[in-house]
Amino acid sequence: MSSASDPDFMTSLARGLSVMSCFAEQRRPLTVADASGLTKLSKAATRRCLHTLVELGYAARNGPHYTLMPKALTLGYAYLSSSDLPAIAQPILDHVCKTLHESCSLGVRDGDELVYVGRSETERIMSIALRVGSRLPLYCTSMGRVLLAAASIEEQNAYLARTALIQRTDRTETSPVKLRAIFAQTAEQGYAVVDQELEAGLRSIAVPITGKTGIIGAINIGLQANRTSLADLRARHLPALRQAARELSLSGL
Amino acid sequence: MSSASDPDFMTSLARGLSVMSCFAEQRRPLTVADASGLTKLSKAATRRCLHTLVELGYAARNGPHYTLMPKALTLGYAYLSSSDLPAIAQPILDHVCKTLHESCSLGVRDGDELVYVGRSETERIMSIALRVGSRLPLYCTSMGRVLLAAASIEEQNAYLARTALIQRTDRTETSPVKLRAIFAQTAEQGYAVVDQELEAGLRSIAVPITGKTGIIGAINIGLQANRTSLADLRARHLPALRQAARELSLSGL
Repeated sequence: MSSASDPDFMTSLARGLSVMSCFAEQRRPLTVADASGLTKLSKAATRRCLHTLVELGYAARNGPHYTLMPKALTLGYAYLSSSDLPAIAQPILDHVCKTLHESCSLGVRDGDELVYVGRSETERIMSIALRVGSRLPLYCTSMGRVLLAAASIEEQNAYLARTALIQRTDRTETSPVKLRAIFAQTAEQGYAVVDQELEAGLRSIAVPITGKTGIIGAINIGLQANRTSLADLRARHLPALRQAARELSLSGL
Repeated sequence: MSSASDPDFMTSLARGLSVMSCFAEQRRPLTVADASGLTKLSKAATRRCLHTLVELGYAARNGPHYTLMPKALTLGYAYLSSSDLPAIAQPILDHVCKTLHESCSLGVRDGDELVYVGRSETERIMSIALRVGSRLPLYCTSMGRVLLAAASIEEQNAYLARTALIQRTDRTETSPVKLRAIFAQTAEQGYAVVDQELEAGLRSIAVPITGKTGIIGAINIGLQANRTSLADLRARHLPALRQAARELSLSGL
């Protein structure tokens, strides 16, 4: 997205944010060489970014190793506290969670990924620890499919062409032809069900949130496959989700 | 913390992060003039930062107004997913929350503020919406007092000298002399109780988490004053918190 011909584009800012982001999912302190490898920036540029982040309190250095500091949370918090959608959604997610005793989440599309921007959780049932800020692929998640279903056919095709469709479980649909049919069906029925395609043992159902500008996000319920049948999901969970989506859609976002 | 004489310090990165942070607590889109006023950067510098953040997908522009985008969450998530403390603490916070049916949080010190880095929540009882990333003053919170109690007398005095001690409720202690005595008592007894000094109707109790390098954070329970007496807090909640802190302290952080 950056452009060498754009004199107002701050390359240093882009590099610094790229270095901060590269810590995600690493679960360990990083050296200059590690961060340089992850960001594809030169070691010299990476070192300057890390040095500046330490000076600003966003990172800490321990010998050759760097870690991020809690100040990095401020930036995510700045989004959450300045945006209407997560604030308006939280009590609605809490209500669904309390009523159905299942975790309920709010997701939006960011590029080719789904980002969790709200979550109300009962017990943790997944091996993936989902929380606000978590990112997942669009093609194999119920919220992702609802968001893809809202895109034009051209956009769907372009997404499928550029995305690595990975077989995450033996049920994951990775055929572009079948996925296109799933997106069409999702758009028609107004919800998406994903049955153990993201993770074995996990089912989820999602519906879209409509704002002034069209579909702005999705909410879902994720639950254990062995506790709830697909028929139950449609009969009991779908109406509650639809009611919640209606409330959110009516809140003037 | 920046230095004009430090050739490795990236001023553009510092400015960009300062512009992102200024959205926190604003609850509205910001113009260039708004963000310039909040960050004390020139309008030209602020405009370039916002332009770059839009190009990178961290912000969006709608006419003269800028908002942050969900991509900003990635940066906070990078801290959470790469740090041991929040990951190790979450199941322990969940256990306390489930056992006592009260919200339990983990906080660390960032400069002169307390930052929430973990939280397990029952019903929301406060007018302040606390969540991961929330920042509160140290002097009037139970976790803040536990963290101040771990500092040297010189550090405590310097903190009290540079901090605006605001009367947030009619019970908030704002006398430096009395606060120093409270810090000493907190260090001695190994916990802090704050009774409606942050917000009317809210009581909390906190204990420290000890890591290899000393006290690295605190956990607390916050609850409604009219439902739980101070005696109850010490008899029932304190032992559960201490047990949780022991588990966390033993986890090799």
